[in-house]
Amino acid sequence: MKDKVKILLTNDDGYQAPGLEALFNALSTVADVTVVAPDRERSAISLAITLADIIRVSPIENGSLKGFHTTGTPADCVKIGCSELMDSRPDYIFSGINSGSNVGLNANYSGTVAGAVEGAMLGIPSVAVSLTSYDFHDYRGACQASLKILDMIKENPLNQFELLNINVPSLPLDEIKGMRISRVSLSSFREKFDRRTDARDREYFWMGGIWNERGADLDGDRFFSDEGYVAVTPLKVDWTAEGTLQRLREKGWDQDWNGEIDE
Amino acid sequence: MKDKVKILLTNDDGYQAPGLEALFNALSTVADVTVVAPDRERSAISLAITLADIIRVSPIENGSLKGFHTTGTPADCVKIGCSELMDSRPDYIFSGINSGSNVGLNANYSGTVAGAVEGAMLGIPSVAVSLTSYDFHDYRGACQASLKILDMIKENPLNQFELLNINVPSLPLDEIKGMRISRVSLSSFREKFDRRTDARDREYFWMGGIWNERGADLDGDRFFSDEGYVAVTPLKVDWTAEGTLQRLREKGWDQDWNGEIDE
Repeated sequence: MKDKVKILLTNDDGYQAPGLEALFNALSTVADVTVVAPDRERSAISLAITLADIIRVSPIENGSLKGFHTTGTPADCVKIGCSELMDSRPDYIFSGINSGSNVGLNANYSGTVAGAVEGAMLGIPSVAVSLTSYDFHDYRGACQASLKILDMIKENPLNQFELLNINVPSLPLDEIKGMRISRVSLSSFREKFDRRTDARDREYFWMGGIWNERGADLDGDRFFSDEGYVAVTPLKVDWTAEGTLQRLREKGWDQDWNGEIDE
Repeated sequence: MKDKVKILLTNDDGYQAPGLEALFNALSTVADVTVVAPDRERSAISLAITLADIIRVSPIENGSLKGFHTTGTPADCVKIGCSELMDSRPDYIFSGINSGSNVGLNANYSGTVAGAVEGAMLGIPSVAVSLTSYDFHDYRGACQASLKILDMIKENPLNQFELLNINVPSLPLDEIKGMRISRVSLSSFREKFDRRTDARDREYFWMGGIWNERGADLDGDRFFSDEGYVAVTPLKVDWTAEGTLQRLREKGWDQDWNGEIDE
């Protein structure tokens, strides 16, 4: 038992989500898994953290799960799990299985992806797992892909400050075509606001219809997951635009003012 | 007047923050500026968006500001401002002036930076501006730097899906040494949780002490802003880890399963 790797498992759908339970059960066959997950749905919370309020932590007492739920965000859960709740730092962070895809630039909003981003920021190898459809509840493909990825990153460790974002097509396990290393799909990205009027005749808005259209990104995560492959996208948490950094230096943007800036 | 560029201005400290008003006044000397900012402080909200609740919008009626406050996050403000509130798409997004630095990986949590990230995701050239100290209220340096950057990106347009994250040292204008193109400082990153007990003897946590230690990142944003320079960090919203993407493909991670995945 002492040789088992230690995994912190989080998500953004909340600790009662069936996708989390499925991934807990799958990872528990090979690892010592501790759930530290939000006490309620925190979709689209991105990498928000809780600084202006307290965080409560409670042990999970239902079903087969072992771990804690917290009043915090996925990033809070990873932080507090690693530093306060687990008896030692986990070897890996997994986040998911999310209900609904996290492909393209939309993944930047995801609390599920953020759980893995936070892990990578702490220097822990981290993986986010999403299933492309909200209505599909066969988690075998996503679980098998997660176990396979765990084996692969044991053998080929991820770079520091990097993570994997995995999108699994909503297909029975034997219909998934395979796995493809992919990039973030940059296809056009849309949303629509719905203007409504409340019972006191005051206007309000609902944000809706946020999606990435399928474009010409033929090695993008949207494309591969649509085509029946598990899309595995390596992400980095250092967002420096390296090419632009060099270009701006060459253009002379480094300036000495010496108090001579015009006001 | 028709030639003035149109700017959407947001922040995460809320529309009543003095840093926002200072930047509004400075940018208004050269641009047609519309504020679309949160109705309250939303620090550390990152790129969260509001999908599970309504968003209210109200015109700002105090002082010299022109625009709207909303119940949403900075990213919500940018989205709703661009698509519903301004009569045409803005030419630029500015976010700030934030009270407190947004350097290193900590910037990933910032709502101020996220306002500019959202702008870049929508394809609009975007700039986040922060002042390194919470206690410093002389905005002249940050305003002059913002006007200078606006001129510079008019002349050298930013790439699509990229933004600038600017950290201005808390110094009088004539003591700022100049401007340096910088990268995200990856120096070690810490936080500490404080365990406390409430009046009913139940435990709770406060997250505190999140900071980037100053390390050996000699061209990092933390280093330059500490040294008295305006640190200008180009960021990208496509987080694909390009090097790893190539490496994993070469390692044979692209796999065809053909229904033969072991269960």
